[in-house]
Amino acid sequence: MEPWQLTAAAAAVKLREGRLTAEALTRSCLERIAEREAVVKAWSFLDPVLAISSAREVDKSSVMGALHGLPIGVKDMIDTADMPTTYNSPIYQGLRQGRDAACVGVARGEGAVILGKTDTVEFAAAGRRALTRNPHDTARSPGGSSSGSAAAVADGMVPLAFGTQTGGSTIRPASFCGVYAMKPTHGVVNTEGAKRYSHTLDTIGWYGREPADLRLVAEAFRLFDLDRPLEKELQALRIGLCRGPNWHLAAAESREALMLAGQRLEAAGAVVEELALPQAFEGITEAQRVVLLGEGRGAFLQEYVAAHARLHADFRDRVENFAGISGAQLAGAYNLAAECRKLFDALFPRFDAVLTPAAVGEAPLGRQDTGNPVFNSMWTLLHVPCIAIPCTRGPHGMPVGVQIVGPRFGDAALLDVAALVASVIDAA
Amino acid sequence: MEPWQLTAAAAAVKLREGRLTAEALTRSCLERIAEREAVVKAWSFLDPVLAISSAREVDKSSVMGALHGLPIGVKDMIDTADMPTTYNSPIYQGLRQGRDAACVGVARGEGAVILGKTDTVEFAAAGRRALTRNPHDTARSPGGSSSGSAAAVADGMVPLAFGTQTGGSTIRPASFCGVYAMKPTHGVVNTEGAKRYSHTLDTIGWYGREPADLRLVAEAFRLFDLDRPLEKELQALRIGLCRGPNWHLAAAESREALMLAGQRLEAAGAVVEELALPQAFEGITEAQRVVLLGEGRGAFLQEYVAAHARLHADFRDRVENFAGISGAQLAGAYNLAAECRKLFDALFPRFDAVLTPAAVGEAPLGRQDTGNPVFNSMWTLLHVPCIAIPCTRGPHGMPVGVQIVGPRFGDAALLDVAALVASVIDAA
Repeated sequence: MEPWQLTAAAAAVKLREGRLTAEALTRSCLERIAEREAVVKAWSFLDPVLAISSAREVDKSSVMGALHGLPIGVKDMIDTADMPTTYNSPIYQGLRQGRDAACVGVARGEGAVILGKTDTVEFAAAGRRALTRNPHDTARSPGGSSSGSAAAVADGMVPLAFGTQTGGSTIRPASFCGVYAMKPTHGVVNTEGAKRYSHTLDTIGWYGREPADLRLVAEAFRLFDLDRPLEKELQALRIGLCRGPNWHLAAAESREALMLAGQRLEAAGAVVEELALPQAFEGITEAQRVVLLGEGRGAFLQEYVAAHARLHADFRDRVENFAGISGAQLAGAYNLAAECRKLFDALFPRFDAVLTPAAVGEAPLGRQDTGNPVFNSMWTLLHVPCIAIPCTRGPHGMPVGVQIVGPRFGDAALLDVAALVASVIDAA
Repeated sequence: MEPWQLTAAAAAVKLREGRLTAEALTRSCLERIAEREAVVKAWSFLDPVLAISSAREVDKSSVMGALHGLPIGVKDMIDTADMPTTYNSPIYQGLRQGRDAACVGVARGEGAVILGKTDTVEFAAAGRRALTRNPHDTARSPGGSSSGSAAAVADGMVPLAFGTQTGGSTIRPASFCGVYAMKPTHGVVNTEGAKRYSHTLDTIGWYGREPADLRLVAEAFRLFDLDRPLEKELQALRIGLCRGPNWHLAAAESREALMLAGQRLEAAGAVVEELALPQAFEGITEAQRVVLLGEGRGAFLQEYVAAHARLHADFRDRVENFAGISGAQLAGAYNLAAECRKLFDALFPRFDAVLTPAAVGEAPLGRQDTGNPVFNSMWTLLHVPCIAIPCTRGPHGMPVGVQIVGPRFGDAALLDVAALVASVIDAA
């Protein structure tokens, strides 16, 4: 087995025990990339010399932290002090920031090797798409906007990668690419240095190839200080199976994935109970749209004013408030979100996690359509932690995942649930 | 009259009419700074050659926007592409960011001359204080954390300056220094590129020497698109006089300022009515503390992990959660804040603005004590726009202000109220 084939968690054990070096792992990942990148196009910046030099630095020090020696890809929405950051915008080609984004700084401080920058949809929002293709079928999208991060982890190019989620940009690509991903509780991972789209929604997430990979990154961010561990066995779990207000938009394969996941959990001894969300949730998808567009208005004003001609029309529309969002509408959306957050949190501890679709269906064809975020956007607005778990295959043989969701700040317990249920749900 | 003595609004007229150049105004400000800086110590970075060169660039173009030709000071918490940014932290000495913070980019795009960086409390939070002194009495604090910005505007060094407010860092220094300041609705001005302290609270604000100055900056940020103008005369105004839940902490001079402002408004024909906030507001100050500390936990993790020894103990404590804030407490604080925001918004249009203290009292003696933010922190958590207005003098002859507060997204109407009431309240 080549080192690039190891999951982050498996590599971490070898690294700690001295049976693998950061340099060897990094070189192996670079070899995998050299072999596959022409087809997958996951990376917007990669400097093998720099990556190997970073790995050597890590090898020189004693174990630095939870991510010691692990290569990690960084979505090109997120600043890096030693690599350019473009946000996939023509305005920021060649941009060199003076310091790392907060999440990159933490990862580096915890011993990670920043491998390179992964391609993204412009400003992780709209406009230009990533060049990245889905490793399972290069005619299809890996999803967006964390296109390169999801594809790189799925294809074995790197064991971990950072994404961001404002609508469904972390969890949806995980479903499309057949990998695991975590979107933590909003705000617990500092978004500083990630280009802003919507301050109420923007969340740093990450990808791995098993639940224990996600846990390593969560440890680096000290998410375990906020919550108590689950301390339950699989048979004692109570899972709320939630179709949610957008079920009518789910393709057959996503409906099947949810039912299959529920059946597998029941068969394994967990209690699975249908969960109908309260009436207030009927407006939550629209509230997310109002927040997204209302906040996008201010988020791209800098580029609108300072680099108007190079700003994609999608963003000029937002600054000009083409959707006509009023302050009153925005306040109303905030109020509804706050109400629904409280209602959702109150479902716990009746449930240990909520099981719900991760995407509409399989990855779409082509590069322009990165998929519909409708099964993610409400959870992003609710600020709750979400973990994507691969589940089945769709009619074209593409991966289809589900996600489990916990209450705000229930990140640690949700990771415990993921560790218990993943091998049951992910029976592929 | 020297150009530096002009308010921003007065200078803007001359600049637009070609009766003043950005270079002449910038040079005049630099002369004022040369004369006063040794005593006031407002600036942490100032390069006269760079400032004059920026002014010349502005003079070369046709009118660029709302801030055409106006020098502006930038709190050294906020990134600038052409000047170092330190956040007053030993970790970031000499930091050069590759791009401007969003607010700086907008100001520059609207024609402002970025004059220099103003001194701040470390990370606008705790640790090291600014070296800045209060121009009215150099034995006293200008307040914090926007110490340099408030003092520089008060002392005529620059007509406008950016601050930030997480607790009371914009409005309180305005009261202490006898200037005007605006903290807009949370989120309407992109905080990207300002060092994060608390994403729920961090707000970019600005200083001027008359209400029309504040309006110019609000125009640059398109705050007028969100709200309808007031379209009322002074005699038709209904003002809610609000002692608030922390009245017992107000010094005699702040109590007097509030009463005086109310009396002056009544004498001028406005309706002033006592406003008792609903019961829920009793917990709002504590909720702000929980949010501040709970979010500070993640905000400084990067520095904790990557530069532990150079991070002030105040921040190490936060990362280690010395206050023991749990996820449940934080969610509870968010829920209460959301409830109070809704309740407060509902007071309008019964009132046109709420009048309330801006600070506990006069500026404290010395450099270590930057004053208590208790009359600001609840409004910051409520996300509502606040405008500081000078009102009277305290027992030591120091300025004492008040503030007017509007509903979320009522920034435009609140500026209209300020334009009507300022000359009545500010009778000094």
